[in-house]
Order: sequence, then C-alpha cells, then structure tokens
Amino acid sequence: MKIAVDAMGGDNAPFATVKGSIEAVKEYGVEIILVGKKDVIEKELIKHNYTGSKIRIVNADEIITNEDKPVKAIKNKQNSSMVAAMNMVKNQEADAVISAGSTGALLTGGLLIIKRIKGIDRAALAPVYPTKRGIALLLDAGANTDCRPKYLQQFAVMGSIYCQKVLQIENPKVGLINIGEEQEKGNELTKEAYELLSNSHINFYGNLEARDIPAGNVDVMVADGFTGNIVLKLTEGLASTIFSMLKEEFMKNFITKLGALIIKPGLKKFKNRLDYSEYGGAPLLGVKGAVIKAHGSSNDNAIKNAVRQAKIFVENNVIERIEEDIEKLGGNHDTK
Amino acid sequence: MKIAVDAMGGDNAPFATVKGSIEAVKEYGVEIILVGKKDVIEKELIKHNYTGSKIRIVNADEIITNEDKPVKAIKNKQNSSMVAAMNMVKNQEADAVISAGSTGALLTGGLLIIKRIKGIDRAALAPVYPTKRGIALLLDAGANTDCRPKYLQQFAVMGSIYCQKVLQIENPKVGLINIGEEQEKGNELTKEAYELLSNSHINFYGNLEARDIPAGNVDVMVADGFTGNIVLKLTEGLASTIFSMLKEEFMKNFITKLGALIIKPGLKKFKNRLDYSEYGGAPLLGVKGAVIKAHGSSNDNAIKNAVRQAKIFVENNVIERIEEDIEKLGGNHDTK
Repeated sequence: MKIAVDAMGGDNAPFATVKGSIEAVKEYGVEIILVGKKDVIEKELIKHNYTGSKIRIVNADEIITNEDKPVKAIKNKQNSSMVAAMNMVKNQEADAVISAGSTGALLTGGLLIIKRIKGIDRAALAPVYPTKRGIALLLDAGANTDCRPKYLQQFAVMGSIYCQKVLQIENPKVGLINIGEEQEKGNELTKEAYELLSNSHINFYGNLEARDIPAGNVDVMVADGFTGNIVLKLTEGLASTIFSMLKEEFMKNFITKLGALIIKPGLKKFKNRLDYSEYGGAPLLGVKGAVIKAHGSSNDNAIKNAVRQAKIFVENNVIERIEEDIEKLGGNHDTK
Repeated sequence: MKIAVDAMGGDNAPFATVKGSIEAVKEYGVEIILVGKKDVIEKELIKHNYTGSKIRIVNADEIITNEDKPVKAIKNKQNSSMVAAMNMVKNQEADAVISAGSTGALLTGGLLIIKRIKGIDRAALAPVYPTKRGIALLLDAGANTDCRPKYLQQFAVMGSIYCQKVLQIENPKVGLINIGEEQEKGNELTKEAYELLSNSHINFYGNLEARDIPAGNVDVMVADGFTGNIVLKLTEGLASTIFSMLKEEFMKNFITKLGALIIKPGLKKFKNRLDYSEYGGAPLLGVKGAVIKAHGSSNDNAIKNAVRQAKIFVENNVIERIEEDIEKLGGNHDTK
C-alpha cells in the first residue's frame, strides 16, 4: 500500500510529517511517498537517520498556505505539495493522501481533483469527537455550511460505514444533532432530515440534544457543516477555557499548588483523552479516494496515527462500501 | 412597581417562587403578585412567617406543565398561573412577569398574550452566558429555529439595549456567532446578517468564532435560535461532563482524594461562576412587556435575582428604548 503525505502541510512541517512517516513505515509496513521540497525532506530524513526503501520523495516546489484562497490555490499552485499529493491518488499512484495543511484547500482539492463519488451530493469532513464513553464521529464538521436534508442522510450513511470499517464499532448508532429529543423538534432542516434518517438502513438513534453530545450515547453525530463546526470549535474552546480557569484556581497559593501537584497525573490523563493526536485525522468522506485531513498542529504522533487510519480506510474498501450503500439509497428514493 | 410571579412554575415551586419573592420584596422594595393556587401559596407564606403587605395573591387554579403543548396550553388553560400572570402585564396590572415554568409556553404566551413590539419580526430569548471575563448575553437561545438576516439584526439591537440598560455594560460589543472570523465566512444567513450588522447603530465586533465564545471578548452574542440553543446546551453538557470526569479522577485513591479536598474551595468557587441562579433569568426580548424566563430548576436565590432583573428592566424603560431603536432601523431600511 502506498500513502502520499503532504510533507509541507501543517504547523510542524516538515519535522512532524517526516518523523511521523518514518515511525509509520516501521510500525505499519506501508510505503510512504513524501511530497514536497526534495532538499528539505532529504535533510529531515538524514536528521532522523532514515535510510530505508519504504519512503520515497516526490518533488513539489510550491506550498499552499492558510492565507491562500482555496479554489485559487488548487487551480494555480499545480506544483504545490498538496495538489501533487492529491494528483497521485487521482492517478492511482497512491492509495491515500494525508495533509495537515489548509483545510479549505484540501476540501476543494478533494472535490476538484479527486472528485465526488457518484450519487453523493456533498462530501463531508468527519473528525473524531472525544466523549465520556470514548469517541464519536462528527460529520459534517465544516465542509458544507448550508445543507439539504438529503445531504444529512448521505452523511449518516457514510459515517456509519466509516465508523464500522475504520473505527471498528459494530452497528454504530447514528444521532441527529438537534435542539430537542422529540421528533417534531428542530429547524426545517433537521425536521426533514429526521424523516429521511428514520427511513434509511442505519441504526438511527433519533435526535441528539446538544447537552447530551459529551456523554457519548451515539457513535455517529450528523449535522450540517455550520452546526458541526460550531459544536467542534466550541468544545475545543470550552475545554481549553475550563482548564485555564482551573489552573488559575490551582496557582492561587501554596496549599492549592500542593493540591494541584497531587492530582496532576489524573488531570494529565484526562487532558490526553481530549488530545486529537491519538485519533489521527478527519477523513473527507464522499470523494473517490482516501483523503485524511490531519490537524493543523499535528505532531509526529498525529501523522503516524493518520497513516494507520489511512491504511485501515483503504484495506476495508470504504469507498466501495459507500458506493454500494449510496446506490441502495438512490433506489429507495425512487420507490418513494 | 408591581411584578407578577408565576408561583407554580419550575421544579422547585411553590417553595422557591414564594421564598424568593419574600426575599425580593425585603431587598428591593418592589410589590409582588404571586399568581397560582391561593391555599398553596398562603401555606408557603405562613411557613416563612411572611405577614407584610408587599405581597398579594391572585388565584389561578390550573398549572401549565412541560408536557403541555405550548400553543394549546396558552389557549386552553386560561386559568393557569402562567396565563393569568401574563394577562396582568397585558392589562397593565403588573409591570413585569416572571416564570420558571415551561419555556415553550412562556414564549407562546409572550407572542399571543403580550404581543410583539411594532416593527419587531421575532422575539428572542436572551439568557446570560458565563465567560472567562464575566458574562455575555446570548440571543436567540431557542425561540426561533429558522431565522432571516433581518431577525438577527433586530436581535443585535435589542441585545445591545438590554446589555446597556440592565447588565449596565457601556457601549456593548456585539459579535455574530460564526464558523470563521473573516467577513466572507459562514452560511447564507450569517453572511447576509454580517452585512446588516455592519450597517446598524451598534458596536459591531464582527464574527465570533465558536472557539472564542468562552473567552468573553464580546458582550452580546447573536445567532439564530437553533445555533444559540446548541451553544447554550452544549456548554451546559460539556461543563457538567468535564466536572464529572474530573471527579472520577479525584476519587481514584486516597492521595487524589486528598488533593481534591485541598482544591475543593477553588473548584466550588469556579463552579459558582457557571451558576445560572446568580444571573436571574432570560428576558424574552421583542414583546411589549418585561417577561423573564427563570431557569426551570430555579431556587429561591434565582427567583430573587429574577425580580431584581425585572425591576431594572422596567426602571430603565427597555421596551421604549427598543421601540425607538427599531423605528430608526426601519428608517435605515427604507433608504437602502
């Protein structure tokens, strides 16, 4: 299996992308193509004493930054590491692509270069959300700000498949993020989506109130990209604010500092549970290739885990399974 | 000043509503009309040895519960404590109404009994949101699931006025909850609302990313009711989940229990900052009367603070100020 890694993408590139790739080839036995500035990548490989044959470099001189406008960047920066890496998947020279670079550009590249699966109206970004019980998949987390009920139905189907095949959760429960539990609650979008989800071949849990999101009663959380993004970002912001406020309380005097010292290991363990780097990245579901968006601040561990995730994604034929299930969904629609 | 309190509304009624009212008349010198079952209220007053003249009872035998359908309840339960209390505001027998009962019924009663201010398209529920810096007003928190850009503009204007007059924040900063900071970010609603808010007589901060909500960089947070409700409920759920997870870590063994004991006062102080009961209730802004929705689980302190809030609301002529500013807004629109 060959995985293309955008070596120049992310806050910690190329250090994290190269080191993470070296760790991944050792641990998972995959082949990795590092795409980016050849001399820079070579220096990194030497720094880590890597001399194996499982990693090769494909040169790409340009870099897409977060300041670039996504569509313009994908169209104009043809020789960027991100575009070159995505082209390798399109041309079947690689089985998957991983990038910690601009989310907007990666989403755009997914649509313009790799293209959508037949029958899929919108591709969705699907990060893992840490809950009290473990994890849940959240989609769409921001690729589509305005959605139709049908898109949410497709997200639910794709999320179910990914959850089964990659996160290895049997018969995953799918919840619709909403402002009340009862079927009649919600806005126009969620009310219609509820109806569609009830009639889909998924394990539909029903509406999931925002208050219950952190408890982790479902495995897949479906929302339009605006709502999903609000949920994801507010969670990040709130967790970080609560921890910083706790820290202030702890640092007040000698006694509280002592208390803080004692509970520090537990607190650290708890913070680790919220750490994205353990979960790899967010797949872009709905395009004809395995595209993994790693967090912008990915360290080498996060990149390594994204490679593992891409490997499981490809091995379990997630794309083919989505194609099959979406075709069935289309069939259902026709008989309505 | 006369404030009508729905004595039967909320999880802790009539204990909390009566005790809170007794405390409020002592502290704020207002007159309170307790609306509900006369014998029940009388017993509560006797229990607390209240014999003053500042509280009187208006009998209403029915009670609207959370299980009642709002519109049906308001129309059919004419002799309920909530409807009777709202009618007193409508008939100018009371200056304000407070209820900890069904949110849906109170919103419906606001529209059907007290009615909207001329020029206001939608009334919004505006609770206070605790932030790292202090508090911010969030509106709409759930009264209107589907909104037009113009509604958000009206929420911004009403929120600004309430924030100045009742929360006593000078020149309050108004942020639009969105999925990015840049003007061009967002869904169709927020992109159009951004434009309208930029051209309104408010101190417009711009887009407020969900990640930045807890930091408290703005005083008024504007959103459609679906998004606002998600923000409010997710915050509640996440704070409670984080605390329960921390508690588990603390209770693991003797040493961590000791640590927990030491930092307990700080932790408690911190939790208190998130305590709704200090902030009174959420005003329903946009109707022709001061309507305060107290939290369903309000204790006597929360009711007392809701009375204080209602008093400031009335004293500062919030309704009249909204009428003036909305008229100006209408003028602006015509010249467009």
